[in-house]
Amino acid sequence: MFEALFQTFEDPEGGVALTARLAAFREELRRRNLTGFVVPRADQQQNEYVPPSDERLAWLTGFTGSAGMAVVLRDRAALFVDGRYTLQAGKQVDPAAWAITPLVDPPPERWLEIHLTMGDRLGFDPWLHTTAAVERLSAACAKAGAELVAVDANPVDAVWTERPAPPVGPVSSHGPEFSGESEAAKLARIRSELERLKLDAVVLSDSHAVAWTFNIRGSDVAHTPLPLSYAIVPKDGRPCLFIDGRKLSNSIRDQLEYYAEVDGPEALTARLADFAASGAAIGLDSATAADALSRIVTEAGGKPVRGNDPVARLKAVKNDTEIAGARAAHQRDGVALARFLAFIDREAPSGALTEIDAVEALETFRRETGALRDVSFPTIAGAGPNGAIVHYRVSRKSNRRIRPGDLLLIDSGGQYQDGTTDVTRTIAIGTPTAEMRDRFTRVLRGHIAIARAVFPEGTSGAQIDTLARQFLWQAGIDFEHGTGHGVGSYLSVHEGPARISKLGTTPLKRGMILSNEPGYYKAGDYGIRIENLELVTAAEIAGAEKPMNGFETLTLAPIDRRLIDPAAMTDDEIRWLDAYHVRVCDTLRGTLDDATRSWLEAATAPLRA
Amino acid sequence: MFEALFQTFEDPEGGVALTARLAAFREELRRRNLTGFVVPRADQQQNEYVPPSDERLAWLTGFTGSAGMAVVLRDRAALFVDGRYTLQAGKQVDPAAWAITPLVDPPPERWLEIHLTMGDRLGFDPWLHTTAAVERLSAACAKAGAELVAVDANPVDAVWTERPAPPVGPVSSHGPEFSGESEAAKLARIRSELERLKLDAVVLSDSHAVAWTFNIRGSDVAHTPLPLSYAIVPKDGRPCLFIDGRKLSNSIRDQLEYYAEVDGPEALTARLADFAASGAAIGLDSATAADALSRIVTEAGGKPVRGNDPVARLKAVKNDTEIAGARAAHQRDGVALARFLAFIDREAPSGALTEIDAVEALETFRRETGALRDVSFPTIAGAGPNGAIVHYRVSRKSNRRIRPGDLLLIDSGGQYQDGTTDVTRTIAIGTPTAEMRDRFTRVLRGHIAIARAVFPEGTSGAQIDTLARQFLWQAGIDFEHGTGHGVGSYLSVHEGPARISKLGTTPLKRGMILSNEPGYYKAGDYGIRIENLELVTAAEIAGAEKPMNGFETLTLAPIDRRLIDPAAMTDDEIRWLDAYHVRVCDTLRGTLDDATRSWLEAATAPLRA
Repeated sequence: MFEALFQTFEDPEGGVALTARLAAFREELRRRNLTGFVVPRADQQQNEYVPPSDERLAWLTGFTGSAGMAVVLRDRAALFVDGRYTLQAGKQVDPAAWAITPLVDPPPERWLEIHLTMGDRLGFDPWLHTTAAVERLSAACAKAGAELVAVDANPVDAVWTERPAPPVGPVSSHGPEFSGESEAAKLARIRSELERLKLDAVVLSDSHAVAWTFNIRGSDVAHTPLPLSYAIVPKDGRPCLFIDGRKLSNSIRDQLEYYAEVDGPEALTARLADFAASGAAIGLDSATAADALSRIVTEAGGKPVRGNDPVARLKAVKNDTEIAGARAAHQRDGVALARFLAFIDREAPSGALTEIDAVEALETFRRETGALRDVSFPTIAGAGPNGAIVHYRVSRKSNRRIRPGDLLLIDSGGQYQDGTTDVTRTIAIGTPTAEMRDRFTRVLRGHIAIARAVFPEGTSGAQIDTLARQFLWQAGIDFEHGTGHGVGSYLSVHEGPARISKLGTTPLKRGMILSNEPGYYKAGDYGIRIENLELVTAAEIAGAEKPMNGFETLTLAPIDRRLIDPAAMTDDEIRWLDAYHVRVCDTLRGTLDDATRSWLEAATAPLRA
Repeated sequence: MFEALFQTFEDPEGGVALTARLAAFREELRRRNLTGFVVPRADQQQNEYVPPSDERLAWLTGFTGSAGMAVVLRDRAALFVDGRYTLQAGKQVDPAAWAITPLVDPPPERWLEIHLTMGDRLGFDPWLHTTAAVERLSAACAKAGAELVAVDANPVDAVWTERPAPPVGPVSSHGPEFSGESEAAKLARIRSELERLKLDAVVLSDSHAVAWTFNIRGSDVAHTPLPLSYAIVPKDGRPCLFIDGRKLSNSIRDQLEYYAEVDGPEALTARLADFAASGAAIGLDSATAADALSRIVTEAGGKPVRGNDPVARLKAVKNDTEIAGARAAHQRDGVALARFLAFIDREAPSGALTEIDAVEALETFRRETGALRDVSFPTIAGAGPNGAIVHYRVSRKSNRRIRPGDLLLIDSGGQYQDGTTDVTRTIAIGTPTAEMRDRFTRVLRGHIAIARAVFPEGTSGAQIDTLARQFLWQAGIDFEHGTGHGVGSYLSVHEGPARISKLGTTPLKRGMILSNEPGYYKAGDYGIRIENLELVTAAEIAGAEKPMNGFETLTLAPIDRRLIDPAAMTDDEIRWLDAYHVRVCDTLRGTLDDATRSWLEAATAPLRA
């Protein structure tokens, strides 16, 4: 029934004996006169999804989680992982070789301060750490009397004989019908940012920024259409784009060369040094620029200026074409979601389905739109207690049968050429408990408080985050993640700089798209999350004394009425939900088969008739 | 009828010809080989209320506002004031001598960059600026090629022949019945903070911190019982207290000498240098420590460590005795407020009263409690359009008759030995308009949202600020000040570090007292503010998954029901208001005269019977 999926369900390999690799690596360090080395789970651009050629941490340790770091010293080695991965790391790595240690609190630097000794030489690859990270490592070394040594070539690569080649996924054009703004216009806006920031040039060290600026998309990593690449945009003169030429068709090369010099990635160092000569101020993105870039600028006599990538700010505000695309993508995605939710309601109560069945069905319905390029991320499908694991990803081994009495939490998204979606629904299988309904209703009220929020121009996500939590707090409960993240336009589903979180100090601007996803997780029992994407729009209010903004909800999918306690809601909240359901039904019904339409009409019936 | 008041109503003197003073000052600068000088409105401790001996800015320029700065150069002079004071400054200073310029945006440094020239020597008094302020001045001078020169003695004082002597207000003991914690216990807690912060000593450059630590109060400045003083608390050994001996009775001196060396303020420099010798790390408060202190530490070979005064954090959390005192003070204050509000309701609708009458009546009722030590600040009594001026202070000239149709905004507080109060009520004189009721009800709903808020331990004021604004935002309106500030215990009515504002990142801890004062101001028409003080307390919630906090409202005074539109409120909000009014009435009625009791019973009747 199902064709090959974007998502796979293989368990991470467990306890492979990699003693030989670690021994060979230590021998390599000795050859280089290093007493230790730092191996982060990172590529050169701090990407969320890392190509196989950069999975050095997994190759060396066996640990395949999405975040982590290893430090190998002569007599000991540590693997640093966060709370999500402690269990998995324990199963994957050799406990005789690796001490498994927290990644965040305390930070690895504390471990280094204790275990480094006077005169140690700790190596690191300056392409795989930001400058801020290097400063932290350097301070730890200084405290221990050790020296932090930048290497020219990564010693893992010297012993990793079957290391895969870097990806060369074909690049495609992201034309004006999707991007809505020419490369020329974008470059002009970047240049005026350089003017404002008093920079002579900026390095686009984030492939997302390169993709946005040059209106291209790629296929180098999973789930995000990234063309791995760099660019340098000078205040005056032609930009330079650095990308493996094998990814470029003739027509794409023509498109790119119209606005930029195009060169291979190996040319970056020399060209950056050229730009940095004679004291030029070169902007480097704090979050993604490798420390190596800063060193190149400094050694060439330039001035590295750390800051936030100006493209990230520009990219976050969607133009009319991107907004129209987002609406179309969400309507298309809504059809797949309606079919999926109807399917779950039909099949799950009998106990016929597993979590993997749910993931496969949802991806299939999305594929049947004919427009799916990828899923935005591996679908989270957590039934019962698995729903309480915030970063749960089902595998063949963890796969659980969905049973009556379970809540099923499904967080998923589609990559369409006109827009990226991200949606979470929590579905009652059989009859939910009174506690589940109480918790769900509190989460829903918080979700509605964000969706209905009206706030002055300039308000940040931090200022509205509490609206999503207030009803949970009243019951002494909370959720331990942010309320929302920015979302790209056929780019990353997690996009900065704005977010809805107590740390989100970036103002919410009209045209930004953010998720609205409060939740509640009862460990060992169930998880609840309700997520829609929201577009920041102008709020028209008669008599308003200043410009006000609000949200337009983009996501179109019913919210499970069986989990709602209308008696605990205000009239305004019920009105919002009923109006949302009318919109979902009216928008989708014309494009649905009869069975799904009937299901949708029932699922979107008003709470109060 | 009224005895002498703590508050006066004199208009600031206008347009005094001070040309001779400016000329003499310039001559003094020439003698000292300076081409310019910076004169801030500040004393050595950046106090809110400044003793007359430190009113150098007023003496030199004629400007008497509470914030400002002057720069005198050879050929020009500027007075920097914020938006509140532009009009007043224009009336008070000689426009031929002074350019009136913004204090905040752009900052004075921009003016300096333009008007200083290469080789200029700009003097400043390092006792009157924080180190951060000096760094800003220094950067501006560097850009202009000028030199910033710290002087040993302030040149204003050299020409200010009738300069008043510094105040020598008597110091009193703030005994255990009010402070609830011995000096020994407080010093032990400060020392463990020093341990944690790796400091060898801390300078208490804030007299509030000295007063708290040594359980004393003073009478050097208006409205805050400050004993102007310094202290040095070392990690080991006896603390030193620096205070003018004329302020100390024998018994107070005995009390202080039990725990500390007591010396005159002139001894501070030498003693600080002693403490700073041999590389000691000395904590200096970023907000109040004069740059001179930092220089003394550095010159003695010590290491100045800028940070937040650890005493400010300790002092903000009130102990059980202070909390009991706050409750008693608010009950006492509530009696005066009930008498005052009944008086206004009786007298104002006939047009018999002015704003000054209201201020005098309120202070009189507070005095008649027999316990009033001072008002917490000059009462803001704004009728009609004056209510829309956030920092309004009535003078004989601005004094307005309170007329039917007006809203009267009264923001006031009392200093009692057991606690400091701060309360704002907005009163309808005659019949309010529908718009006034709509606005008042929105402000009230925001006030109630804060009062009823429940939030996890560790939540900051920034995280709840929006709760107070949400209903105003829905109408496209807002208020341009913070929602709340910390309040001292018979100390300053404005106390850090916690506040409820988008900038208030300090966690709200149990025992802190904060104001809750949302408002709305319609320029030229009316002002609304509703302010209660709130104590942070543990919120007991069945089934709570983590420690939760909430507020106990301390202020006891009816909120004007004539301004409330119950139809615009939720049931929970109405229940909160009715319950609050029941508590106000039950707590106060037994101590009121018959007329006031009748008035109070009517004023606190339930919105819904």
